[in-house]
Amino acid sequence: MFATALRSLRIIEVSAHCDLPCGVYDPAQARIEAESIKAIDKKVADSDDPDFRVRAAIIKEQRSELVKHHLWVLWTDYFKPPHFEKFPELHSLINEATKLAGASGTKGSFDESVADELLAKIDRVAEIFAETKKA
Amino acid sequence: MFATALRSLRIIEVSAHCDLPCGVYDPAQARIEAESIKAIDKKVADSDDPDFRVRAAIIKEQRSELVKHHLWVLWTDYFKPPHFEKFPELHSLINEATKLAGASGTKGSFDESVADELLAKIDRVAEIFAETKKA
Amino acid sequence: MFATALRSLRIIEVSAHCDLPCGVYDPAQARIEAESIKAIDKKVADSDDPDFRVRAAIIKEQRSELVKHHLWVLWTDYFKPPHFEKFPELHSLINEATKLAGASGTKGSFDESVADELLAKIDRVAEIFAETKKA
Amino acid sequence: MFATALRSLRIIEVSAHCDLPCGVYDPAQARIEAESIKAIDKKVADSDDPDFRVRAAIIKEQRSELVKHHLWVLWTDYFKPPHFEKFPELHSLINEATKLAGASGTKGSFDESVADELLAKIDRVAEIFAETKKA
Amino acid sequence: MFATALRSLRIIEVSAHCDLPCGVYDPAQARIEAESIKAIDKKVADSDDPDFRVRAAIIKEQRSELVKHHLWVLWTDYFKPPHFEKFPELHSLINEATKLAGASGTKGSFDESVADELLAKIDRVAEIFAETKKA
Amino acid sequence: MFATALRSLRIIEVSAHCDLPCGVYDPAQARIEAESIKAIDKKVADSDDPDFRVRAAIIKEQRSELVKHHLWVLWTDYFKPPHFEKFPELHSLINEATKLAGASGTKGSFDESVADELLAKIDRVAEIFAETKKA
Repeated sequence: MFATALRSLRIIEVSAHCDLPCGVYDPAQARIEAESIKAIDKKVADSDDPDFRVRAAIIKEQRSELVKHHLWVLWTDYFKPPHFEKFPELHSLINEATKLAGASGTKGSFDESVADELLAKIDRVAEIFAETKKA
Repeated sequence: MFATALRSLRIIEVSAHCDLPCGVYDPAQARIEAESIKAIDKKVADSDDPDFRVRAAIIKEQRSELVKHHLWVLWTDYFKPPHFEKFPELHSLINEATKLAGASGTKGSFDESVADELLAKIDRVAEIFAETKKA
Repeated sequence: MFATALRSLRIIEVSAHCDLPCGVYDPAQARIEAESIKAIDKKVADSDDPDFRVRAAIIKEQRSELVKHHLWVLWTDYFKPPHFEKFPELHSLINEATKLAGASGTKGSFDESVADELLAKIDRVAEIFAETKKA
Repeated sequence: MFATALRSLRIIEVSAHCDLPCGVYDPAQARIEAESIKAIDKKVADSDDPDFRVRAAIIKEQRSELVKHHLWVLWTDYFKPPHFEKFPELHSLINEATKLAGASGTKGSFDESVADELLAKIDRVAEIFAETKKA
Repeated sequence: MFATALRSLRIIEVSAHCDLPCGVYDPAQARIEAESIKAIDKKVADSDDPDFRVRAAIIKEQRSELVKHHLWVLWTDYFKPPHFEKFPELHSLINEATKLAGASGTKGSFDESVADELLAKIDRVAEIFAETKKA
Repeated sequence: MFATALRSLRIIEVSAHCDLPCGVYDPAQARIEAESIKAIDKKVADSDDPDFRVRAAIIKEQRSELVKHHLWVLWTDYFKPPHFEKFPELHSLINEATKLAGASGTKGSFDESVADELLAKIDRVAEIFAETKKA
């Protein structure tokens, strides 16, 4: 089901870039980094090398920054007042997603369920993004 | 006189940080960069050297990125759900401020009035920030 | 036709992340930035504001760096010796793509055809990437 | 009370920038990051989660880089030969402050007293900075 | 003696740049960062402070990124098709060097022998680079 | 001949690093970036393409930042109080060099003589650096 949503989103995107006057945006950028966070969590769960855990923490911190950055760019540069009116949840949704990206280190550290929550929120952003492209 | 203001600001900040569980935040960071944007606009208005104009554009672009970054960090890391409830304008306010930071290059390029609008929004964020510290 | 290739690539990717021991990679990251370069070229062609042209050059320079970075990461971190053996063109292909990303500023500056060449090379990288995922 | 101090600080700053030919500088930028280092030290002292300690080290390393950067910019871009003549301690002062920023990781790692020394040096830089503004 | 070597190196470099249409490149940039990695490995081997080990991992990760970046720039911006023809090993050599730079964290973590392998590959790149300068 | 100079430089460097407790430093890093600035100035003088001039300004700005950064790192991390005592010019020398790196954009923009002054100062830093290695 996720794959389906993703696929329909992509088609619209590709056609959308052609007539876009204001740049190229894609929630996939945030998602790829968030998937990386989840993959790191998984690998840390399977490892008991403390040096690996440290290195994973460093890389995960960078990935979290990138998730936040990509979502912030969507929030500031792509979404416009009419979008926020039509989707009243949008401000909170992106705010919570960026908080989760940052939190994926703090609480529960390498807890995969935080990454899952983050991915779910990014998927909801992607759905809204796809809606705004249709209009 | 500056030194006095600085010192009193510091004392309040330091006491505020003591009971803070989540780090050190300060809207002054965004404001300093926004003042830099305004100063660049002023200097470009007074110059007719095209190379200077290009260099100003490069530096202004970096300053804009920093304004956006500092505001994004406040929005994601400092402000919490109760703040957004108490100040319903907060999401839009920060969103518009970051849009202005980005726009200060696009429309009107070196138009100081855009920098003034940006500074006014940052000052409103700083007021709300100060309110939340009192609580 | 491109949309089809893209779509099949995506499906494999999503399933691939699950069993991936070594991280999350996606040629889409390079493509999104390259599309941005092409969009910038288009907008510059439609504008005669010299300040806009300067700003476009600054942003395009950053996008070019990102295209190069995403391709370099694929080349170094994702592709392994067996891939280079199976696809003898792969070294040159990615090398030429990164050269085009850099060159998209130097020669022809805002010439869209350079961006098109770059996009074609990234699409070929994506096809090979999809092939390696199937194996 | 905070809002008042903030507002009076602003007014002086703004007037100071008006006659400045070379941009906007503020030792507060270094101080905010240094306070963050001290806050991190405090939080690490109160925690016994090893993952938290690693994450704190990563963030502290970034904050240290920012302290150094802000001080270097003041040293290179703001302070001029007459300042170094009038305040013969200035070179050493900033050099020692940046060394402390870097050292706050090496020796004593999460030792708050290093952060305190750093803050004291930054405050002395701010005093000299304020002196040069009066002239 | 160091000064002499440095000076003779400089002269050759400077003369090389004069007829260069495409900028200034130097494999020494990658080497300096790789030596830093080796030095970090050495210091970690001599220390049993866990905080120091974490800090070393953070800095080493940055150094690794820089090694990769400097090699990527040589590969994309300096080396041209005739070079790849004349030195058929060049693609693999740089690819392996960048893989080693990245791997110097993953496998064996602070294992100096990985840094030695990396340095040997960078020296071979430098030899080829010197060959191309002679032509 | 280049290879020989390179190799002898390397040997000295390597031996120098062995007794270094604090990392790997090399004034060559600043010099390479400064040579790049000079090369850019030269190429701009030979070109009358305004887009090329803009792109050159962007890249030169980045190079200037790197020159400053490498010199700042030497000043803060490599040089110690005894060095500043033995070479009383050292603070001013590095301060002036970083000022020149920044100024190479402001005054005279693409004026090669500014790059030459910068290179001369970096060479003097390198001489002092070599002196401190002998001790």
